[in-house]
Amino acid sequence: MIANDTIVALATASGSGAIAVIRLSGKDAISIGSRFFKSVSGKDLSEQKSHTVHLGHIVDDPRVIDEVLVTIFKNPHSYTGEDVIEISCHGSLYIQQEIIQLFLKNGCRMANPGEYTLRAFLNGKLDLSQAEAVADLIASDNEASHKIAMQQMRGGFSNEIKNLRDELLNFASLIELELDFAEEDVEFANRDEFYKLVNRIIHVLKRLIDSFAVGNVIKNGIPVAIVGEPNVGKSTLLNALLNEERAIVSEIAGTTRDTIEDEMVIGGMSFRFIDTAGIRETEDIVESIGIKKTFEKIEQAQVVLFLIGSGQLAVGNDAIQSFIIEIEKIKNQFPQKQLLVVLNKIDQISDSELANITTHLAPHTAHLIPISAKTGFGVEQLTDTLLNLINTGALRNNETIVTNTRHYDALLKAFEEIQKVKYGLDSELSGDLLAIDIRQALYHFGEITGEITNDDLLGNIFANFCIGK
Amino acid sequence: MIANDTIVALATASGSGAIAVIRLSGKDAISIGSRFFKSVSGKDLSEQKSHTVHLGHIVDDPRVIDEVLVTIFKNPHSYTGEDVIEISCHGSLYIQQEIIQLFLKNGCRMANPGEYTLRAFLNGKLDLSQAEAVADLIASDNEASHKIAMQQMRGGFSNEIKNLRDELLNFASLIELELDFAEEDVEFANRDEFYKLVNRIIHVLKRLIDSFAVGNVIKNGIPVAIVGEPNVGKSTLLNALLNEERAIVSEIAGTTRDTIEDEMVIGGMSFRFIDTAGIRETEDIVESIGIKKTFEKIEQAQVVLFLIGSGQLAVGNDAIQSFIIEIEKIKNQFPQKQLLVVLNKIDQISDSELANITTHLAPHTAHLIPISAKTGFGVEQLTDTLLNLINTGALRNNETIVTNTRHYDALLKAFEEIQKVKYGLDSELSGDLLAIDIRQALYHFGEITGEITNDDLLGNIFANFCIGK
Repeated sequence: MIANDTIVALATASGSGAIAVIRLSGKDAISIGSRFFKSVSGKDLSEQKSHTVHLGHIVDDPRVIDEVLVTIFKNPHSYTGEDVIEISCHGSLYIQQEIIQLFLKNGCRMANPGEYTLRAFLNGKLDLSQAEAVADLIASDNEASHKIAMQQMRGGFSNEIKNLRDELLNFASLIELELDFAEEDVEFANRDEFYKLVNRIIHVLKRLIDSFAVGNVIKNGIPVAIVGEPNVGKSTLLNALLNEERAIVSEIAGTTRDTIEDEMVIGGMSFRFIDTAGIRETEDIVESIGIKKTFEKIEQAQVVLFLIGSGQLAVGNDAIQSFIIEIEKIKNQFPQKQLLVVLNKIDQISDSELANITTHLAPHTAHLIPISAKTGFGVEQLTDTLLNLINTGALRNNETIVTNTRHYDALLKAFEEIQKVKYGLDSELSGDLLAIDIRQALYHFGEITGEITNDDLLGNIFANFCIGK
Repeated sequence: MIANDTIVALATASGSGAIAVIRLSGKDAISIGSRFFKSVSGKDLSEQKSHTVHLGHIVDDPRVIDEVLVTIFKNPHSYTGEDVIEISCHGSLYIQQEIIQLFLKNGCRMANPGEYTLRAFLNGKLDLSQAEAVADLIASDNEASHKIAMQQMRGGFSNEIKNLRDELLNFASLIELELDFAEEDVEFANRDEFYKLVNRIIHVLKRLIDSFAVGNVIKNGIPVAIVGEPNVGKSTLLNALLNEERAIVSEIAGTTRDTIEDEMVIGGMSFRFIDTAGIRETEDIVESIGIKKTFEKIEQAQVVLFLIGSGQLAVGNDAIQSFIIEIEKIKNQFPQKQLLVVLNKIDQISDSELANITTHLAPHTAHLIPISAKTGFGVEQLTDTLLNLINTGALRNNETIVTNTRHYDALLKAFEEIQKVKYGLDSELSGDLLAIDIRQALYHFGEITGEITNDDLLGNIFANFCIGK
């Protein structure tokens, strides 16, 4: 699987910028580069030290394509572990194409998606979960997903798995050694110690498996269903939430992110707001299409934000009662969802009206938040509450969080196998049968970090990378 | 005007790629960088040599923002001539923003558009026309505009102007020196030599001024009016032209350029195709709106491509005659435009029909090209003819070509002044009056290369750059 050829690709974002970086990696990277690079000082590129930068021109004799800076990385001290050169050229698409074409015509081939990272993995610069974290890191668009990807790329997750795997491997060897001396009935592997290790592994695996719920939410965003009738101020609320965040990024020209109205980052976490109709108008026809759709959408959500216009309640206690019925209906239907009752437009009612509404509603919800999306009053309290509803304890405590479905699956399988080992120990299973289950558990551990792998698996993982990565 | 502060900006294209490069420039670039960069080997960034690359992390203690490569450039050996660091980080928008914000909070300010290049100019790394060429180079999207920008950035144009200016300056000094000895009636400046120089300058300026016609066309594209009725195959022809080019770029994934249907690069030159209706249907109503519009569009073009469906002609010699009338009408109306008669769909007529049509049409046009846009037959001959119609002699001969309107204006003014000098010499004008005209010519020369400048002029030039350049 180790490739011998030299690959080339654009490493920076496609499009036109001040500069662009083109990367060559492979055994001929430096020699190919030096054929077309004329240093201003007349130096030969192939004689320069690793981690040095050189000013010169890319020349397809007699044509000067660009004035560039070339950086040399000598194997194994490069991203891929191979010889690498990075060419920092002017950022025109035309120049990028001309330089890449020049190298394609002269011994390089276009890199496949993720091929730089694949080579880094194959050359032992990264394990598989670290390689996967590179893609996660580049895709990360908020503090939480960034933090987890960074942690994983720096080996936090792999190290935990690797250590457990090493300890387990040690016992596996001892137990397998016993099999060679089967007739002598010796026990090299201390069963008590082993039992403790198995329990420890079960504990860690359980924690990692459980962390996937929050990890998944961090990676894909927290779904929040907004239940509210027209004119209660849904879009004003979304804008108010968005503006609080936008103010932070607006100062960086050229790097403002695309904003999707209903997906936004609040306090470093990504939220997906799902608009739903109210459920009041159809309160007596449970099967009605409208209410069914609202319920379906709530089903997908983790948090339900029940938005009420204060004016709807100020008309009297009957109106308040009808909303209480709705609140209770949602609580009954979805006891496991976090419910947040938000009282909007409080600038339009009197203090005494607000006091009356609060008194009536408070017993029915753990989270009652009066706001004015228009003036911004209460919006910060709302965002704080939203963030507190999410169990980010693990995140705050720098614990390892699993975000990758592939890892999750492997952990579940390892968990299953290690429980078999535990039952085996409990029922004093013979060493040879025990060894089979241990080997299975080891296999699944190895899948995560890439000690166990195959071309199909690697193909699937790296196909999701972009070219140049 | 020289700034003391340290600026930061994204240098690569905005968007998400494998990597992104953030650039700091200014007296504190290295010290600010080293505060937030933790090298993996524990080295202090501020103690490292220029043009070296260092692996480490950007850390806003305790938070690790990214694993990065940092390159150091020490003044004056950098693009701006100041201390510069370039941070090559993972290409997520989130990471780019976090790193830029970190530096904005710690002593950097966001770079203005073109400010890196402005600083390079102010620090004498580039003259003004070279600085302008940087923007042209980045904007170049074809071989011709790239070649001219490259030539200008490497000083070809500036050197020619500077040499003339130096020689002229020398004579100006001698003539001004004579003024100090006015009563002694001496002549330090040899009038014959000076006359020769002035003639040489006039000759060079004339060539440069004339080159602007082709320079402008290269920079903005060659306008080609396609005259043709519906169904003669205009869009098939455009696609055929486009495909021939597309085949070249399609192998580079991620770098395919946006294609505007009616603007395309052929053989390294940019062409703008202007669609017009035919002029036949309204042949007896010269003032008709349709024909007026067609004529207006032809007016904007440099080349007229008259596209005829062969089937229209194959019906008989009467039909051919009516097209000959049209051809002659265009030739009479626009004698200065290049006319190209293209016979499309020749796959739909017989060889004898084609021979008959050709015999009739040939005497009326210098360029008669039979093609089949559908099969591709003749398309190459068409592109060759298009390219030959454009006077690219200067381009092929590596002569300096003026593409910049500001330079063109300054050259025209310098030309005017230097002609005054010539008349002055012819009419034996006194030294003091001669000196005034010479100074004026020198002033306009200086405007081009930036020896003479002011904040308004610089503001205008660099405002058109993007941030990070």
